[in-house]
Amino acid sequence: MVQSIGTRLDASFAALSDPTRRGVLEQLGRADASITVLAEKFRMTLTGMKKHVGVLEQAGLVTTEKVGRVRTCRLGLRRLEDEVTWIERYRQLWDARFDELDGVVEELKRKERVDGRKKK
Amino acid sequence: MVQSIGTRLDASFAALSDPTRRGVLEQLGRADASITVLAEKFRMTLTGMKKHVGVLEQAGLVTTEKVGRVRTCRLGLRRLEDEVTWIERYRQLWDARFDELDGVVEELKRKERVDGRKKK
Repeated sequence: MVQSIGTRLDASFAALSDPTRRGVLEQLGRADASITVLAEKFRMTLTGMKKHVGVLEQAGLVTTEKVGRVRTCRLGLRRLEDEVTWIERYRQLWDARFDELDGVVEELKRKERVDGRKKK
Repeated sequence: MVQSIGTRLDASFAALSDPTRRGVLEQLGRADASITVLAEKFRMTLTGMKKHVGVLEQAGLVTTEKVGRVRTCRLGLRRLEDEVTWIERYRQLWDARFDELDGVVEELKRKERVDGRKKK
């Protein structure tokens, strides 16, 4: 299934908005793990962990493989490139915006000084 | 209200998981705007836009100020520092993990070549 960047960002940011799911990603960044092991580590029911892994899988951040009765989870191929690109672009806007506001404040201060001098 | 980094990440990643909310942030990165203007730009009801702005405000990404009947929205002071820090750390884990897997694959290929030669 090919997803648009927007849809991918929706899914990945939603996936990252939960502490357990961020924890699972960090854990899988160290070693692959079965759903059972993850459920134990995060003190959660199997059903609960399956749901979290499902959300991560949907976002392309985790892949799973079932061999016999064990489903092993590992990191997916997505390295959060689009997410970083979006945030970086936003930060550029943010910086420009706050520089602009700084400029307005400076201009107001300058005018105040000039007005102050005129009143004297 | 002081929030822990984890709670902040939950709120901000959830805020970023919606295309309208990302659009509002980009828009406010260009200029402040009233809820009414934002609702028009994103072809949405006032109530719908108020909800989105509320989520962004809760996450500290937007601040609003009501003067008379107009509520003006502007970017909040949060520059997504913690979010970038989390993602960067994750990418380091990701890189290390895939380097490790590359190593395993290389090792398997090497063994295959050695075994292949032995069989000849």
